[in-house]
Amino acid sequence: MGVTAAQGFRAAGITAGIKASGTPDLALVVNDGPTLAAAGVFTSNRVKAAPVHWSEQVVKGGTVSAVILNSGGANACTGPLGFQDTHATAERTAEVLGLNAAEVAVASTGLIGVRLPMDKLLPGVDTAAAALSADGGEAAAVAIKTTDTVHKTAAVTHADGWTVGGMAKGAGMLAPGLATMLVVLTTDAVVDAQRLDTALRSATRTTFDRVDSDGCMSTNDTVLLLASGASGVTPDQAAFAEAVRTVCADLALQLVGDAEGASKDIRIDVVGAATEAEAVDVARTIARNNLLKCAVHGEDPNWGRVLSAIGTTSAAFDPDALDVAINGVWVCRSGGVGEDRDLVSMKDRQVVITADLHAGPAEATVWTNDLTADYVHENSAYSS
Amino acid sequence: MGVTAAQGFRAAGITAGIKASGTPDLALVVNDGPTLAAAGVFTSNRVKAAPVHWSEQVVKGGTVSAVILNSGGANACTGPLGFQDTHATAERTAEVLGLNAAEVAVASTGLIGVRLPMDKLLPGVDTAAAALSADGGEAAAVAIKTTDTVHKTAAVTHADGWTVGGMAKGAGMLAPGLATMLVVLTTDAVVDAQRLDTALRSATRTTFDRVDSDGCMSTNDTVLLLASGASGVTPDQAAFAEAVRTVCADLALQLVGDAEGASKDIRIDVVGAATEAEAVDVARTIARNNLLKCAVHGEDPNWGRVLSAIGTTSAAFDPDALDVAINGVWVCRSGGVGEDRDLVSMKDRQVVITADLHAGPAEATVWTNDLTADYVHENSAYSS
Repeated sequence: MGVTAAQGFRAAGITAGIKASGTPDLALVVNDGPTLAAAGVFTSNRVKAAPVHWSEQVVKGGTVSAVILNSGGANACTGPLGFQDTHATAERTAEVLGLNAAEVAVASTGLIGVRLPMDKLLPGVDTAAAALSADGGEAAAVAIKTTDTVHKTAAVTHADGWTVGGMAKGAGMLAPGLATMLVVLTTDAVVDAQRLDTALRSATRTTFDRVDSDGCMSTNDTVLLLASGASGVTPDQAAFAEAVRTVCADLALQLVGDAEGASKDIRIDVVGAATEAEAVDVARTIARNNLLKCAVHGEDPNWGRVLSAIGTTSAAFDPDALDVAINGVWVCRSGGVGEDRDLVSMKDRQVVITADLHAGPAEATVWTNDLTADYVHENSAYSS
Repeated sequence: MGVTAAQGFRAAGITAGIKASGTPDLALVVNDGPTLAAAGVFTSNRVKAAPVHWSEQVVKGGTVSAVILNSGGANACTGPLGFQDTHATAERTAEVLGLNAAEVAVASTGLIGVRLPMDKLLPGVDTAAAALSADGGEAAAVAIKTTDTVHKTAAVTHADGWTVGGMAKGAGMLAPGLATMLVVLTTDAVVDAQRLDTALRSATRTTFDRVDSDGCMSTNDTVLLLASGASGVTPDQAAFAEAVRTVCADLALQLVGDAEGASKDIRIDVVGAATEAEAVDVARTIARNNLLKCAVHGEDPNWGRVLSAIGTTSAAFDPDALDVAINGVWVCRSGGVGEDRDLVSMKDRQVVITADLHAGPAEATVWTNDLTADYVHENSAYSS
């Protein structure tokens, strides 16, 4: 059910004709209240798409009544006219739903540098509004897909009677992101904008921010969290934050599992770091090493790639104290040859690489994928 | 002729049996003087191979009488025993040639984390010494190949009667490097170690350091410059430095042209930067963007990938002022759509991407390659 798992929300996903493929390309999520509290986090890329500029302003007000999302075009690097297109999309959505455009968030995904076909998108808004329903969450999740092979939804319901649900598209991270990552989370808990913001930032920091499929940061990444208050229940903040984190983690792993061309999901656990920041830095550096990603694709426990990646960081460690395990086999001990690499089985889709820096108590996990010929094929013809 | 283009040098390349393939795997370069001045630059990776630790010490003395180089094994992450192997290699080379082991540099390339077969390597040193000749430069260049498809040599002769020549293997950069990059440069000019060091550091900074094939830094990268003084000519330092830079640039472009699996050479010119360091940072960030590298492979002028890469840097620029050209067509103007992307032809092997930050007078060029399915195939089975 995704974004309509929580009470107080309706959603729709329809085909406006933005995509040449004729598949669904426009999604609408409406918060019917009673509250309209919202929070959001956006790409840290300095080249931001028009809808990101728009939605950042909308979210600053702490109130979002609807989100209109299109696939088939990122509306990034489209100049003032592109921003006008985003504005017009919010206006049309507000008009047809009787809302205030300043409370309508907009998200777009697809090719950078191309104007959206507004002659198709604007009538599509009317169609989407007419299709809104309390079980439209799946259709909305389908309509935001670009290169995704499956749509992605998640939800958890707390014993106290409130729910957090959501949908996601893309295969990447908040910053950076493989392709555009769009996420809309909804809850019927009674939570004000400030508490939503706290819970959302805490959740994304250790979920979407720790997925690094290909090290490329999108211009459009957007994560929104809307609260309708329809359950009437005011949750404990810790329980609420944990629920948001659970849904984010679920969606984040779905993104990894559906990354472009990937055949392996790689979990990189860095332990024994001096600080969490250094653990993340080392894990991310390993995650971005193309040679290692190719080796994992070939089911080759080539731990030298891990060490040469770690060696490029400025984290605290002694090169002669590094231990590295692949799927639990410590193939590198004290910076040199450890257990027999032939003991490593890499047949399963999930591969776990553990690096122990022996420099402190901190740790972090980053998720990535292998690098495959399919990734190359998919991205060598993306805009043609 | 490569390393034997200059007078006063002999070289050899032989098959010691280190590689399972049975192709040449051991090279020897000897400086017959009268001078034995030398300089070197090495990988900045904190995980350094044993021969790098050894040769850094040798070069510190300013005197190198011979360089012994093997392919078929990097001797990295091999612990104290690996260092003993390097030491034994230098000792055997010194012994057979009647030299001081402390003046014998060692370089290795190949798989990380595997001990070298010393029972084959040490007798190979004798064979190489017996094969030394004043025209052995080509054979030496062949013997240091790993995944290289061609061997790489270059030389320039100055009107004053001195020569700078050299050989290289690998496809990458000094820091980072795709696979191990090994370079030996020789000159018969009369130049002391300090002036060699100045010329070499200046040359590598804008040549090998500006090649970024896949963003991966090797544990073994080594560039050595040896001067025999055999021409009897003491060159003007500026002319000498320029000759060294020319040979380095020639070899660096040969590395790019032979990068693993590459079908395109990509030159990234960043202009209008506030500082040279920022120009390099932006160019390198573009060079490492896998999505862009795939797009270039597909001959797709997807300039949005360039902008989204630039946006991840902290360089000074206004996103709405960025201009980007691909092969001379300014497809992005003022951060938005520029000239028609259909005007861009990407059929040639060389692709030039120009980014104008409009933030100052500095500029820099970085060379990279496209990302291809062949790269994935080659590196998914590298150690198996």
